[in-house]
Amino acid sequence: MIPRTIEWIGNLEGCVQLIDQTLLPGRLELVQISDLKSLFEAIRCLKVRGAPAIGIAGAMGLVLALRDAQTQDREEFLKLLDTQADYLACARPTAVNLTWALERLRNVAHRQTGLSVADLKRMLLAEAKAIRDEDAATCRTIGQNGLALIKPGARILTHCNAGSLATAEYGTALAPLYLAHEKGIDFTVYVDETRPLLQGSRLTAWELGRAGIEVTVICDSVAGHLMSLGRIDLVITGADRIAANGDAANKIGTYSLARLARDHGIAFYIAAPASTFDLSIADGSQIPIEQRAAEEVTEGFGRRTAPADVKVYSPAFDVTPAEFITAIITELGVIEPVNAETIARVMR
Amino acid sequence: MIPRTIEWIGNLEGCVQLIDQTLLPGRLELVQISDLKSLFEAIRCLKVRGAPAIGIAGAMGLVLALRDAQTQDREEFLKLLDTQADYLACARPTAVNLTWALERLRNVAHRQTGLSVADLKRMLLAEAKAIRDEDAATCRTIGQNGLALIKPGARILTHCNAGSLATAEYGTALAPLYLAHEKGIDFTVYVDETRPLLQGSRLTAWELGRAGIEVTVICDSVAGHLMSLGRIDLVITGADRIAANGDAANKIGTYSLARLARDHGIAFYIAAPASTFDLSIADGSQIPIEQRAAEEVTEGFGRRTAPADVKVYSPAFDVTPAEFITAIITELGVIEPVNAETIARVMR
Repeated sequence: MIPRTIEWIGNLEGCVQLIDQTLLPGRLELVQISDLKSLFEAIRCLKVRGAPAIGIAGAMGLVLALRDAQTQDREEFLKLLDTQADYLACARPTAVNLTWALERLRNVAHRQTGLSVADLKRMLLAEAKAIRDEDAATCRTIGQNGLALIKPGARILTHCNAGSLATAEYGTALAPLYLAHEKGIDFTVYVDETRPLLQGSRLTAWELGRAGIEVTVICDSVAGHLMSLGRIDLVITGADRIAANGDAANKIGTYSLARLARDHGIAFYIAAPASTFDLSIADGSQIPIEQRAAEEVTEGFGRRTAPADVKVYSPAFDVTPAEFITAIITELGVIEPVNAETIARVMR
Repeated sequence: MIPRTIEWIGNLEGCVQLIDQTLLPGRLELVQISDLKSLFEAIRCLKVRGAPAIGIAGAMGLVLALRDAQTQDREEFLKLLDTQADYLACARPTAVNLTWALERLRNVAHRQTGLSVADLKRMLLAEAKAIRDEDAATCRTIGQNGLALIKPGARILTHCNAGSLATAEYGTALAPLYLAHEKGIDFTVYVDETRPLLQGSRLTAWELGRAGIEVTVICDSVAGHLMSLGRIDLVITGADRIAANGDAANKIGTYSLARLARDHGIAFYIAAPASTFDLSIADGSQIPIEQRAAEEVTEGFGRRTAPADVKVYSPAFDVTPAEFITAIITELGVIEPVNAETIARVMR
């Protein structure tokens, strides 16, 4: 089995331990992080990534930021907490899980009026650990809720990495696959390599392969061709933020897959925990889309592959309108069809 | 200006000179090739690529293969010619221009009953040079025939490289762009990087940039997203083989672009010379699709980006059905709509 993507080691004096995902698949290396700045950087440069894992990392980062605070004054401590939470929230803008987790810690601290600062610190750590444990349970439930989709012989397409590396365990999009594999169901997975950072070929192919699941890596541009040949039965991806009407931001390229799936009569599923829903925004047009550095495209492979100074447009995400999503699989149930009413019913 | 992609230097004792496209955009290097085996290898490993350029390379390769033949017997010489042409045709299977050019040399030689072997050799070289010169003229005419599509302010998407590097001059898909630029029309070009071998970011961005045309490189998965934002006005690509009914094989990913363009109400054009049409096959299902090596995907740029031994599916081309092609721009005229009748009318 793969070690946990992210873990808190020890008590309040301990540290965050995470798999440095930028080194995969070449090297499985655990790094230990004891200060806020390093953790912020680890999120920003994608050592840890995947919407739910970023949420866990943010919560643990906030504990790192606060545990050495000298003040014994509760109000002063809460002000520091708010400042640091705002700072951490800037590490990556699109995934809502980060702000969701930070908000959860903030609420816990502000609610506990009777506690000392020392107790508040311990309580924040307990809450961060709870977020991680709940995410593992959530992912397993998503897996169970999506299990029926994985029929024997199924040929499944996925994009980017929404697996155990992106979450506490199991993953979101990959959870139904892991559970189906545990039950002995045979199926095969086509994995988009997912340019520019290749999370599909580097991470998804690696973790599915280690679990003994049959994987074929394809370039992103091959997916539509495979659909036209009748070689894809369903598409399943994760999401980074889902608006109240079901519009879903996910790794760049997801929108095209959803359109192409519709063109070919293939079901397109998103699997995501409730924490990925942002009911404060009506539709996908309000989701901020992170832009990535040109160098990830022009010299991503360790060698320059485009002319010097060429202009690059590299959004990290795109938004798939709800109408192209067959269903959203959550830990609270399967949302189908996807619209504001069905979402409100499951999320209430 | 860019030197010619491929050129014959000198007389029958001369050699083939070509731009080693595998070194671009880092280094512009001309290599000289004097023997059949090296030229075959140059085609196979994509030092020279692009359907029309492969045709020229094949013709010049056949001259290299035959110029040192010792025999003075015409029949024996023609037999050798047939053998070597068959060998060269295997270098790459999808582009029909290669077999088309070899067939043209074969026909010339077989038709000339009165000539000595020495004269035949000289005639074959003249024919190979004629193929190159005609291709330059053809491309310029394609450019003129497609010029009206390039309106001021147009935002154009292209895939792979169908430019001057892929032809004797001007290119096919890029020819209307070069001519529009000559005429002072302002427009901008989005270039798909085109995995796995990145002909878009390495070659198209390079040659358009050198001509002073505004270029933005995108990952292949960004194209659909740009269409959804209303930021693409038309798509134009080349083709490697077009069946009698208009189904067109081109670089993998083209099919998806055509479908996505249709979904968004965007025109999708193919630009190709008459030599790209293979009227001997009724539709695209009969076009052989070359499979590329897994390593181009898993360690394409000097660094392993997928787990060892992972399965890879990497077709070099896909087939776009005629119904998704708005028009085909040829040197004989613009074919629109695209079907067996309109093609037969222009190609007769």
